[in-house]
Amino acid sequence: MTAASFGARLETVLETSGGLCVGIDPHPWLLEQWGLPTSASGVRELGLRAVEAAAGSAGVVKPQVAFFERWGSAGFAALEDVLTAARDAGLLVVGDAKRGDVGSTMDGYAEAWFAPDSPLRVDALTVSPYLGFGSLQGTIDRARQVGAGVFVLAATSNPEARAGQTALVTGADGASRTLAAGIVDQVRDDDQAAGETRLGSVGLVLGATVDLASYGIDTASLAGVPVLAPGFGHQGARVSDLRSLYGSAARNVLVSTSRGVLAAGPDGMAEAVRDAAEEVRTCLA
Amino acid sequence: MTAASFGARLETVLETSGGLCVGIDPHPWLLEQWGLPTSASGVRELGLRAVEAAAGSAGVVKPQVAFFERWGSAGFAALEDVLTAARDAGLLVVGDAKRGDVGSTMDGYAEAWFAPDSPLRVDALTVSPYLGFGSLQGTIDRARQVGAGVFVLAATSNPEARAGQTALVTGADGASRTLAAGIVDQVRDDDQAAGETRLGSVGLVLGATVDLASYGIDTASLAGVPVLAPGFGHQGARVSDLRSLYGSAARNVLVSTSRGVLAAGPDGMAEAVRDAAEEVRTCLA
Repeated sequence: MTAASFGARLETVLETSGGLCVGIDPHPWLLEQWGLPTSASGVRELGLRAVEAAAGSAGVVKPQVAFFERWGSAGFAALEDVLTAARDAGLLVVGDAKRGDVGSTMDGYAEAWFAPDSPLRVDALTVSPYLGFGSLQGTIDRARQVGAGVFVLAATSNPEARAGQTALVTGADGASRTLAAGIVDQVRDDDQAAGETRLGSVGLVLGATVDLASYGIDTASLAGVPVLAPGFGHQGARVSDLRSLYGSAARNVLVSTSRGVLAAGPDGMAEAVRDAAEEVRTCLA
Repeated sequence: MTAASFGARLETVLETSGGLCVGIDPHPWLLEQWGLPTSASGVRELGLRAVEAAAGSAGVVKPQVAFFERWGSAGFAALEDVLTAARDAGLLVVGDAKRGDVGSTMDGYAEAWFAPDSPLRVDALTVSPYLGFGSLQGTIDRARQVGAGVFVLAATSNPEARAGQTALVTGADGASRTLAAGIVDQVRDDDQAAGETRLGSVGLVLGATVDLASYGIDTASLAGVPVLAPGFGHQGARVSDLRSLYGSAARNVLVSTSRGVLAAGPDGMAEAVRDAAEEVRTCLA
């Protein structure tokens, strides 16, 4: 039995549930606002309630690993419970861990997040290319093997990232492109080489606050590549700009929102998720 | 009471124990070689034995988080035991996690690895600058506050990293430098701004397999900056080249070795660590 690819599964979710991705980022201030203890049990409770609120109106959740790691092994046990609840609710899960290391070490992370027997298994993981796209190849291959995916950081939504991500790399062809644009090319080529003719299993993180053209990224080149897009809401981007930001790739975009829905609190979050999911659908209708 | 800075503590360790850093990387094949189960209890056992072998002849250990994370919360519980044993043995501990995210998320990682009440607390953490050096500033500040440090990835030892890390960034002064050289400048400036006139608390990862000059990195500019150097041993660099590789900064270098000593097995590792520590001392004598 071959598991359906992450790309194929994501395509189904985008068609049936739309592009909203609920970020589960249990910041300490959110725990306080929710009346929860700032502890592993607090992040577990917020995570479980967020999964409940997302189920039904969103198709994807994205737990931010840092806020679970904050509590050490107890925090990871809480994350495992949240991941189990999300899987049981039929949600697609993106682990937002931004792991990146040399290839032989990445194999350890790949097993952590993709091995079928791992308590941390997710449908996709965010990964960081500072050690080169090649350092991620084993992780990408392992993900594909089990029907999972990765989102590679390319152009992130925080302003202090711009200088490095627009640094110029000279390719074998003698042409220069930005570091971020080079990552875009490598991701697209990897999806194409894998024969993923519709939506690929390797995607990109392209922040919605970023002027992609000024990074040398042509949205027309993103056909078939899933995009995870942070930067909406408090960071300043508007969902209504989805088409102008991502052009023909807008239908491949996971619109990540976290504070926007979590700040509605435990009683208001389900409605906030419904509204946010509807907004994304309306903008793409 | 102000805790001694990481830089000051590292300087003492370098003077008294020398520059060897024992990497604790419990790869699956090493667990097998040691006759240990490939499980959380296997990585715990290898980690605890490695700490015993290091204590006495090395001053610094560096657990590779990926191989503990592989086992989820049980793996992190094992890592916590290894960290406790290392602290109890008086070793300086570098957590090799290469975390990197936007500032508000990095705050979560900073608390995980530096908060005095965290079971994961370490003396220093490796961090990744793909989201910009600025994204790491809060983590650096938190580290200094508790007498801890960070090592920022600059030029890593794996060959596939070169293209991105030598990408050219144009600074405010109109001059171009490589991404890695820019990180070197920002780290040094941060140590100087903190008034750390001897050894700073913010260091760099500069692989021993890298031709630093071809990255535009002048070893003379590394005065006062701690350097974590992977790449010795199976990756090809020789400890005897320490001075030619790092010039006047050679005395600030932590020579990382992992497979070279772990492959000696549980019975031979203590002797392998003694020999490796002696080799580093001899090369700097």
